[in-house]
Amino acid sequence: MASAHEIAHRVARGETTARAVLDATLARIRDKDPGINSFVTLTESRARAEAQAIDAARAAGTPLPPLAGVPFAVKNLFDVAGLPTLAGGKVNADAPPATADAPLVARLRAAGAVLVGTLNMDEHAYGFTTENTHYGATRNPHDPSRIAGGSSGGSAAAVAAGLVPITLGSDTNGSIRVPASLCGIFGLKPTFGRLPRNRTFPFVHSLDHLGPFAANVADLALAYDLMQGPDPQDPACAPRAAEPVREQADTAAGLRVAVLGGYFHDHAGEQARRSVALAADALRASAVVELPGAAQARAAAFIITAAEGGALHRQRLATHYAHYEPHSRARLVAGSLVPATWVVQAQRVRRRFLAQALALYEHYDVLIAPATPVPAPVIGTEILTLDGRELPARASMGLLTQPISCIGLPVAVAPLWQGRDDDRHLPLGVQLIAAPWREHHSLAAAHALEQAGLAHARAVSTD
Amino acid sequence: MASAHEIAHRVARGETTARAVLDATLARIRDKDPGINSFVTLTESRARAEAQAIDAARAAGTPLPPLAGVPFAVKNLFDVAGLPTLAGGKVNADAPPATADAPLVARLRAAGAVLVGTLNMDEHAYGFTTENTHYGATRNPHDPSRIAGGSSGGSAAAVAAGLVPITLGSDTNGSIRVPASLCGIFGLKPTFGRLPRNRTFPFVHSLDHLGPFAANVADLALAYDLMQGPDPQDPACAPRAAEPVREQADTAAGLRVAVLGGYFHDHAGEQARRSVALAADALRASAVVELPGAAQARAAAFIITAAEGGALHRQRLATHYAHYEPHSRARLVAGSLVPATWVVQAQRVRRRFLAQALALYEHYDVLIAPATPVPAPVIGTEILTLDGRELPARASMGLLTQPISCIGLPVAVAPLWQGRDDDRHLPLGVQLIAAPWREHHSLAAAHALEQAGLAHARAVSTD
Repeated sequence: MASAHEIAHRVARGETTARAVLDATLARIRDKDPGINSFVTLTESRARAEAQAIDAARAAGTPLPPLAGVPFAVKNLFDVAGLPTLAGGKVNADAPPATADAPLVARLRAAGAVLVGTLNMDEHAYGFTTENTHYGATRNPHDPSRIAGGSSGGSAAAVAAGLVPITLGSDTNGSIRVPASLCGIFGLKPTFGRLPRNRTFPFVHSLDHLGPFAANVADLALAYDLMQGPDPQDPACAPRAAEPVREQADTAAGLRVAVLGGYFHDHAGEQARRSVALAADALRASAVVELPGAAQARAAAFIITAAEGGALHRQRLATHYAHYEPHSRARLVAGSLVPATWVVQAQRVRRRFLAQALALYEHYDVLIAPATPVPAPVIGTEILTLDGRELPARASMGLLTQPISCIGLPVAVAPLWQGRDDDRHLPLGVQLIAAPWREHHSLAAAHALEQAGLAHARAVSTD
Repeated sequence: MASAHEIAHRVARGETTARAVLDATLARIRDKDPGINSFVTLTESRARAEAQAIDAARAAGTPLPPLAGVPFAVKNLFDVAGLPTLAGGKVNADAPPATADAPLVARLRAAGAVLVGTLNMDEHAYGFTTENTHYGATRNPHDPSRIAGGSSGGSAAAVAAGLVPITLGSDTNGSIRVPASLCGIFGLKPTFGRLPRNRTFPFVHSLDHLGPFAANVADLALAYDLMQGPDPQDPACAPRAAEPVREQADTAAGLRVAVLGGYFHDHAGEQARRSVALAADALRASAVVELPGAAQARAAAFIITAAEGGALHRQRLATHYAHYEPHSRARLVAGSLVPATWVVQAQRVRRRFLAQALALYEHYDVLIAPATPVPAPVIGTEILTLDGRELPARASMGLLTQPISCIGLPVAVAPLWQGRDDDRHLPLGVQLIAAPWREHHSLAAAHALEQAGLAHARAVSTD
């Protein structure tokens, strides 16, 4: 599929129309998605109206906005006017329809992008696999027997399968970075507080982030730039003016890069270690550094997640337990029983860990770590064996992302492929982790890996 | 006793010396404090060295700083180099001595003020009465059979008794405002995040405030101004430059003032209502307004306090329970068992209540409420009768302050006296509550009440 830049360019020059792009997109989704299950709802009628308005504007000679005619789709926890906001849950299916689009949806629409549908996810974003019991598992486009990752699995799979060039997801503990890694595409989790979250279904107020997926860095940076800017309705969103990254993301010259060792090496499988080595080499990483306290930070993220998630769902769990996702409902109940002292202690751990990380950023601009310990497991996998240790497979997909989101650092994931042999046909991404509010460093590093031919979305084989 | 301004003026002009001021201060404390019990530790040797340095500087013709030679004292939860930081606790008496002064102590010292000692408080700041079992109750200078209020009871009583012109305290749920009200002096609880709290013994990280007490508004504003400015070691301290209030506090012209009705009227005794009426009249309050959700905000403050306080002390309670204050140890244990869902919900209540308050500040600059429901009860009082309801006396002293600190608004307390008849010989202060970061509005209102002859510290009768 063409990139967002190419589509907008061709629409603007009249080489195609928004309507033709939309027709082709809907046909592609109807043809390919049944085997992938990334979409839950198509928004065809509004998409047709939006495409028509763009074509009419062009016919009238009105200058077109930067994403004119570009199809996109969003994780189904974003409010879309007229639809109930499912957030992956059957329990939300009878909710009243949203009265307006979420700000990020509205901003992309204002930039000319055309919303074609909403995407599958782990229920209430509590999971790393998108094995959704109600709406079915989303399958990895590179091997449909395997997971797409989660919780934004539909968002990653839709881009990886070439259905749409841009999607949006959310990341509380790794839910953008894990599926980007497993599906072999680019994803951006911005700094905590960068993008407003109002009119999205929350999970963990103090950890939730929103961000884009794309098949190349230019599209990712463009989508991100067009969504920046505060919204007073999200009190955690920082009142910062937009800081566009498009230009800055082009050069990685002068970036000081290091590899995260210790915990981030010990919890990585062989392919993850090779991905990091390839990225480190291409980015001329000058050192392997320790970020002490990562295991404790992950534990803190677990506790805060369980407690805030449990509090959010407590009342409905009491009345609708049977309607909740079997993969996560027991954890939500457990979370609602966590003592507050644990959370207070977890917040302390978080403050200390952030201080440790900020000290590293005095010397480096980007820290590299794997995004997932292993490539995509087969759907239904319960146990993951890592360095001889048996770990719970689903929770362990976030081993390497949780400590980072716990302190809100911005991260771009770049997908790496290591060969064509059978055991390496699956991608595994690296996290390019920058200091707070320095998304351009993450994106510049991702762009450098893309330029070096190492990181790219790979067309799905249709043999 | 002379005001801080007068003392500094006289020292600067050579009409007295810092040493003479110090000698008189120490003599006064030794003479009067045994009946009041506001001081726990005198810091005579460092005070003598500091006074000597000031007198030497003057002799050498060096210009003197604004508080040169002014004696002050601090609640014993502030670090004072060389002393263990008791925070009212016997359990802390064997702690290693502090290695440096707390930033606020250091800033007043840099302004020439001379630290003469540390002051009594409720253990670990958990209380509104300063009935400290280990160090004895602090007595109200206007009636030694009565409480001084708490938890900064020593700080208020020392100023009210004329022992020192300036003291420092802390306020988590009312611990500056309650004793200022009961002892009949001025107190300022600045906006949450205004003054740095590092090197003080914490209680509730997300609610703790520090601030000054004085016998007049000019001294209060000067002390506050000299302490302003961020410190990176307190991550909750806002990185704002100092915003001096001394000049602005002089005029209340144009202030839009309203009285808080509803909860703040219903939980006020007769004298409290009269204090508010007097202040409202003097400040030309134009309306009685509702601030819905105050009871819920107080409950939220209770839960957050118990949970964070419980987490802070949990380990030591397990090993040193018998050494803890009987008035609060059971509450700390209970707090350590609070479920996190309660705290998450309490934080939500807090955000909603703040939004309600901010809406009022679109129309008003200062909201008036009583600082305490009643004047100082007799020491040992267990039950308070308010409008025919029986309430627990100790906790209820914070009924009217807790909802306000819960959302971090700045408050000056101005002491009002209603007559000389027996039943009105005790003061009762009003809260002058401003919008976040608008301390000058609170202080301007306090100054207007002082100018009108309504609010003032009254000399202790020594019949």
